[in-house]
Amino acid sequence: MNIEMIRAAAKRLEGKARRTPLLNSPFLDDIAGRRVWVKPECLQHTGSFKFRGGWSAISALDPDVRKRGVIAFSSGNHAQGVALAAREHGISSVIVMPADAPAQKIENTKALGAEVVLYDRATEDRDEIGARLSKERGLTLIKPFDEPQVIAGQGTCGLEIAAQAAQVGVEQADVIVCCGGGGLTSGIALALEADAPQMRVRPAEPEGFDDVARSLNTGAIQRNAAMSGNICDAIITPQPGDITFPIMQRLCGPGLVISEDEARHAMALAFSRLKVVAEPGGAAALAAALFRKDQIAGDDVIVTISGGNVDAAMFQSALTKFGS
Amino acid sequence: MNIEMIRAAAKRLEGKARRTPLLNSPFLDDIAGRRVWVKPECLQHTGSFKFRGGWSAISALDPDVRKRGVIAFSSGNHAQGVALAAREHGISSVIVMPADAPAQKIENTKALGAEVVLYDRATEDRDEIGARLSKERGLTLIKPFDEPQVIAGQGTCGLEIAAQAAQVGVEQADVIVCCGGGGLTSGIALALEADAPQMRVRPAEPEGFDDVARSLNTGAIQRNAAMSGNICDAIITPQPGDITFPIMQRLCGPGLVISEDEARHAMALAFSRLKVVAEPGGAAALAAALFRKDQIAGDDVIVTISGGNVDAAMFQSALTKFGS
Repeated sequence: MNIEMIRAAAKRLEGKARRTPLLNSPFLDDIAGRRVWVKPECLQHTGSFKFRGGWSAISALDPDVRKRGVIAFSSGNHAQGVALAAREHGISSVIVMPADAPAQKIENTKALGAEVVLYDRATEDRDEIGARLSKERGLTLIKPFDEPQVIAGQGTCGLEIAAQAAQVGVEQADVIVCCGGGGLTSGIALALEADAPQMRVRPAEPEGFDDVARSLNTGAIQRNAAMSGNICDAIITPQPGDITFPIMQRLCGPGLVISEDEARHAMALAFSRLKVVAEPGGAAALAAALFRKDQIAGDDVIVTISGGNVDAAMFQSALTKFGS
Repeated sequence: MNIEMIRAAAKRLEGKARRTPLLNSPFLDDIAGRRVWVKPECLQHTGSFKFRGGWSAISALDPDVRKRGVIAFSSGNHAQGVALAAREHGISSVIVMPADAPAQKIENTKALGAEVVLYDRATEDRDEIGARLSKERGLTLIKPFDEPQVIAGQGTCGLEIAAQAAQVGVEQADVIVCCGGGGLTSGIALALEADAPQMRVRPAEPEGFDDVARSLNTGAIQRNAAMSGNICDAIITPQPGDITFPIMQRLCGPGLVISEDEARHAMALAFSRLKVVAEPGGAAALAAALFRKDQIAGDDVIVTISGGNVDAAMFQSALTKFGS
């Protein structure tokens, strides 16, 4: 896993992934007490950064392997990113999802061309289903984060951050990244180590699901006690990855932890001040920049909005509580 | 008024205005029956394209004139665009607003550094107030649309559309523009005449406030019967401008007219499929692309989202009716 893999992924992604802009607002600067720069990956294809990793991984496969198709386990953003990347490569994708996933996520994934295989979480073994399908049909598994070509794809977001920050004269800043398994966080950290070495990546996580912050603090991988029960579901994973954690350990500063209401508040501010739609987990880094300012140093802070796949009811509840 | 003025404005705007991306979604393509490309000017500074025209006009002033400051009449997007452009030029701005304008719009404009002068619509004459202040303080009036350097600034959006469409292989398309007085519409039309001559601009307006469509149909400037009573308030003006109308007459195809509910529906789809916030008037062109497809020809259609300055309650009502 190195910077050359990220640069190679960037070449494969050229003209395929969107180069999302770098946004800012004087109103957010006032709240944060420093300039806030926002990389809105909610504007990426399929509404999250996951398209980068999906495209990177699929495009890196040997053509003979690729043509047999890919498989992924996901009920969320990774599913849609892999489905669209597969369709645009002209290959088939199988997405294994729990049968109780929200109907709209299942429909969206199908509409992007994937074959969705549902399983019963109580009685069936997801991995067994995946292994059987992979074997029968020669499908390649695209892991959500602990896979070098996926990390390389997410890292292309970091190359863009370095270039776009330099354009506005920012060379030194904490870069806060919404963090689940660490694919985006470690990818951005590797990119910035090369292209913006005075920047420091810091993961943002929801309270109670701060496995990465605790892992960084203790120097060893820590698990979350639960896997559900927080609106920031898009960035909740059992624990950091075996590949992503050592990268984060070497390169990242301390994690930042935010509450559900702070995520909602950041969603409402992204709506009113940036005109973009953030999902709760996608607003975690912005929330940290705005509401943990004493834990951040410097004149500038950069944050990702990692995704915007939120249903209308959840979005409305954030606006009801914090909109104006 | 010519293309060289737009290219000169683009130079002055470089590094100042945002180059907004060109977005798309397979879900929108399915509804429209053709590929839909979206230029989200809601992501521009101050949440609308108006920053382009404000910056262009202020940056074109003679420095000795400019340093005395500028004045504008507006309760909406033009106010914020001029206020921020003035502040970033280090000059003062006076914005004349009706005293019954929404409190948040007044506060936002003040927060962007403007001096807000309120007047009573029933008893005071806005133009008299403006003329007196201009004379006393040597302020230059920045008109909202019928002013060549403002049109030139809005036209820079058209230069970007031509370049971004070429990048995705689109050379021929109807380009639907949310249209009030015609500053954005005429500016984009002039830019595309030069850089994408196979494209044709078409104004989009709300039902009952289709002065531009009727003016184009009849070949003479027509007025709207009313100035309020539609949620698309950001794009309602009494009539097309004396400068903008001849340009639109020469270059534009027939206008498209949409209902309030179609604007709401397009807002909800911009939320769910593009992850951007459109105000009702800003969603007019997208609504036309999605719901007037029989009046559009070709494999591709390009639309502007002209602004995203909508309050939470209005946005929530659109999601309640059309969100999922």
